[in-house]
Amino acid sequence: MKVGILGSGQLSKMLFLAGSTLGIEFVTYSDVETHFFKDFKQQIIGTYTDIAKLNLFLSLTDIITFENENIPKETLEHLATSKKVYPCLKALEVSQDRLIEKNFLSSLNIPTTKFYEVNTKSDLIKTAQEINHNGILKKRRLGYDGKGQFRIKQAEDLVAITEEDYKDCILEEVIPFDREISIIAVRSINGAISYYDLCQNHHEDGILRKTINVVNDPYHKKACDLISKILIDLDYVGICTLELFQVGDTLIANEIAPRVHNSGHWTIEGATTSQFENHIRAITSLPLGSTNSVGNFEMHNLISEIGDKAALLKNPNLHLHDYQKEPRKNRKLGHTTIRR
Amino acid sequence: MKVGILGSGQLSKMLFLAGSTLGIEFVTYSDVETHFFKDFKQQIIGTYTDIAKLNLFLSLTDIITFENENIPKETLEHLATSKKVYPCLKALEVSQDRLIEKNFLSSLNIPTTKFYEVNTKSDLIKTAQEINHNGILKKRRLGYDGKGQFRIKQAEDLVAITEEDYKDCILEEVIPFDREISIIAVRSINGAISYYDLCQNHHEDGILRKTINVVNDPYHKKACDLISKILIDLDYVGICTLELFQVGDTLIANEIAPRVHNSGHWTIEGATTSQFENHIRAITSLPLGSTNSVGNFEMHNLISEIGDKAALLKNPNLHLHDYQKEPRKNRKLGHTTIRR
Repeated sequence: MKVGILGSGQLSKMLFLAGSTLGIEFVTYSDVETHFFKDFKQQIIGTYTDIAKLNLFLSLTDIITFENENIPKETLEHLATSKKVYPCLKALEVSQDRLIEKNFLSSLNIPTTKFYEVNTKSDLIKTAQEINHNGILKKRRLGYDGKGQFRIKQAEDLVAITEEDYKDCILEEVIPFDREISIIAVRSINGAISYYDLCQNHHEDGILRKTINVVNDPYHKKACDLISKILIDLDYVGICTLELFQVGDTLIANEIAPRVHNSGHWTIEGATTSQFENHIRAITSLPLGSTNSVGNFEMHNLISEIGDKAALLKNPNLHLHDYQKEPRKNRKLGHTTIRR
Repeated sequence: MKVGILGSGQLSKMLFLAGSTLGIEFVTYSDVETHFFKDFKQQIIGTYTDIAKLNLFLSLTDIITFENENIPKETLEHLATSKKVYPCLKALEVSQDRLIEKNFLSSLNIPTTKFYEVNTKSDLIKTAQEINHNGILKKRRLGYDGKGQFRIKQAEDLVAITEEDYKDCILEEVIPFDREISIIAVRSINGAISYYDLCQNHHEDGILRKTINVVNDPYHKKACDLISKILIDLDYVGICTLELFQVGDTLIANEIAPRVHNSGHWTIEGATTSQFENHIRAITSLPLGSTNSVGNFEMHNLISEIGDKAALLKNPNLHLHDYQKEPRKNRKLGHTTIRR
C-alpha cells in the first residue's frame, strides 16, 4: 500500500513516521524540496499544475491525501480522476475559503461569530460598523498562522487598510471568549467516528503556542456533536479538526482543518493511537485505533528556533520533535510534549 | 548530526524512526538492500570489506553505530580510524564470539552455565560427559535465532554430529531455569547509566516469541548490578542488553547483545523514552531520556508471516509494527505491543 501525500512539511513527516511503522509506503509531492524528505527517492518536486509530474505521482500511489488545505482544488480534481483522494474535495473547498467555510458551518447550524464578505472599501466601512469596529479582516484564502490578517479595534484602523488588503476578504467579529479549544476526530471509510479528548489551546499573534489535552472535559460532548455534523455531511474520511471558542456555555466554530492538526501533536505520546496513525489507518481502510488519552499532556511549539536541544532534553521526561526545517522567523520548527 | 548505521534491518528502521523525531539524519550501510531503506538516497550497499564504499560511508557520517554484532571486526576497526564508533569495538568482539563472551563474563564474576571450547570430536565427547550429555553445541560465531545449534540430550545425540558441526564451537550446559529474562540499560558518553524495567521473555525453537515488562521485579536490582559491571568495564556507550536465566535466586548470564534488542521493543509504547531513542541520545551526546515504564505491556513477535493486518488491528489498543521485510520461514517480520 502506497500513500501519496501532497505537501512535505512536518505534518507529512509525522504521517510518514506513523505510517511506516504500520508498513505503509509513501510518496510525497510538493512545490518545494524540504529537508526531511530530501534523502527520499520518492519525493516529487513540481508545481501543482505540472500534469506530467502529477501523473508520475499518480502512477506511484494507491491512495492520495494532503497535509494542507492550500493545495489548488484543480490539482486534487485531476488526481481524483484516477485515484481515491481522502478526505474528499469538498472538505478542501470548504476549508480553503473562509467565506465558504463560514456559510457551510451556518448551513449545519454550527454557531460562528458574525461574518461578512468584503471586497470594497465601502463593504469594509459598512460591515465594520455592524460589529462596532471590533473584528479581524482576513483574506478568504491562503492565510495561516495569522498571515494576511488585520485586527480592527476602532474606526480609525480602517484608514490604513489599502485596496490590496480588503479585496477577497471576510470580516469576522471578535468576541471575548473563555477558552480556545479544538476537537479532533477521525472517521473511517465505513463511517465509524472516534474522537480525541478536547484540546485546550493558547495562541499568540495568531500562532498556536501551547496545547493541553483535557480528559473528561465537560464540553467534550458538545464539541463532538459539532464536528460529527461536519464529518457526516461531508462523508469525510480521515482526521478532521474543528477549532472552537468557548463563550460561556456556547461553543463557536472558528475554523475547520481537514487534516492532522498542530493542536493534536500531543497524541503522539499522549493517546493510544496518534492522530497521524489514525489518519493513515482511516484512509487505507484499516480499523481505527483507540483515541483514548494515556495521561495528561502539554505540547509547546518551538517557533523561529529550536534552541539548545541538549538543554531541552535535560528534562528526562520531555519528548522533542525536530521537524528538520530551516529556521525562519515565526516558522514552526518543532515541538515538545511532556506529561503534566 | 548524521549517524551511520551498519546494517539495515528492523533495528535500523526503528533507530531511524526514533532518531528522525529528534532531528538526527541517517546513512545506512549493509551488504543487502532492504525494503524499508530502498527508497532512501542514503542507503549504501556494499560488502563489509569494500574500502571505497566504506570510505564513502565515512564521508557522510559524524558518528557510527551498528544494529548487529556480526559485522566483521575489521570493518569497524577501519571505520574507527576516522570516526567515533559506539559502542566500542571490544563490545563487538566480546559478543560476536560465544567463547570470548563467556570468558569475559567469568572475568567479571558474572555467573554463566558451564561452558567448554569444542574443536574436535574428542573435545565434544569428553566435555559432553562432564555435563551428563545435557547441553547445547553452538557455533562460536554468527549464530542467531537458534541457527547453528545442536541440542544434546543423551550420548547417542553425538553420533549425528559431523566435523563440520563441531568445529569452532562452544558446548554449554543446559540447566532447568525458572524464568528467561533480560535487562536493557543505556550508558551515556559521560558514564550515566539508566535501566529499563526487567523483560520477561519466552522463546520457542531458539526464537523470542513474547516479552512482558515487569515493573518492580524483585530481581531487577540484581540484573542491573550485573549489566553495570559490563557497561563500566567496556566504557560502553549506547544501549546494551544482557540475557539471563533465573535459577532459584541466582541470575545466570546467557548472552550480551551490544545493541538495541528484540526484548526491548515494548519500550516504544511502554517506556517514557524507547530503547531506540535512548541509543541515539547516548551516542550523539544528548542527555538520556527517562527509562520508566508507563504501564504494563506485552510484545509478541510476528514470525514467518505478518498475517491479516486489519484483523490484528480490530483490537483498537494494539500497536502493530511491520518491518516491511520479505516473508521467509522463521524470519521476524514485525511485532505487536499491547497494554496488559
